[in-house]
Amino acid sequence: MTYTAPDAATLDAMLSTVKYDASGLIAAIAQQHDTGEVLMIAWMNAEALRETLENGRVCYYSRSRKKLWRKGETSGQIQHLKEARLDCDADAVLLLVEQIGVACHTGRRSCFYRAFTPTGLVELTKPEIDPAKLYHTHG
Amino acid sequence: MTYTAPDAATLDAMLSTVKYDASGLIAAIAQQHDTGEVLMIAWMNAEALRETLENGRVCYYSRSRKKLWRKGETSGQIQHLKEARLDCDADAVLLLVEQIGVACHTGRRSCFYRAFTPTGLVELTKPEIDPAKLYHTHG
Repeated sequence: MTYTAPDAATLDAMLSTVKYDASGLIAAIAQQHDTGEVLMIAWMNAEALRETLENGRVCYYSRSRKKLWRKGETSGQIQHLKEARLDCDADAVLLLVEQIGVACHTGRRSCFYRAFTPTGLVELTKPEIDPAKLYHTHG
Repeated sequence: MTYTAPDAATLDAMLSTVKYDASGLIAAIAQQHDTGEVLMIAWMNAEALRETLENGRVCYYSRSRKKLWRKGETSGQIQHLKEARLDCDADAVLLLVEQIGVACHTGRRSCFYRAFTPTGLVELTKPEIDPAKLYHTHG
């Protein structure tokens, strides 16, 4: 599965259906396209979603840094888009991606690495990459 | 995989680590536990998350109706919890569930049924259940 970008008119038409919240954002879930592993959740504004669909490289919007967050730009842990899907309310997208390296700033493949269990929160995975090498920020 | 609820003290300790947003909410992603299909995204307040982890039946918080939304209470399309996972920022949960029937109020299994494609938004699946039988609201 290789992502193919739409032409400008088609992209505009699709983007016009998206419903952003009061902050101008939608939720974006990244899922490894072939294994089904849910990697992370982040946010996109209209510019981030447009860039992602134009380039086939995932770009979020960082609420803390208040700017576009080109996933992997500093860490190298980029996400190649395979397919993007819109939900019924048009206010969330599911991104099927090829995750290079790890998605989580802790160095783990997935951000959802802790399980609620009868004995407390249990870590399911260990870091695959030293987080110090990921610049200590989401990248 | 069968969900086992923690005792009250363990549950309290785990819930104390969760970080709610300014509206008192966290994002909750529901994924079918065995197929990996991402079914939906919704929201939980502290009460909804507690109830879900106590009962093993998924309960969200409806932002539009401003009250607890016991998934399937009116529609019958309930979600049995298999495992809940917390993300690195402690502000989102991944719910591995056994979805009875369909997750989407349109009668489709997943809410993410439209793909962004070079020819526009394409519906990937058809309704499995007549939405009129699902009470016309998220249930």
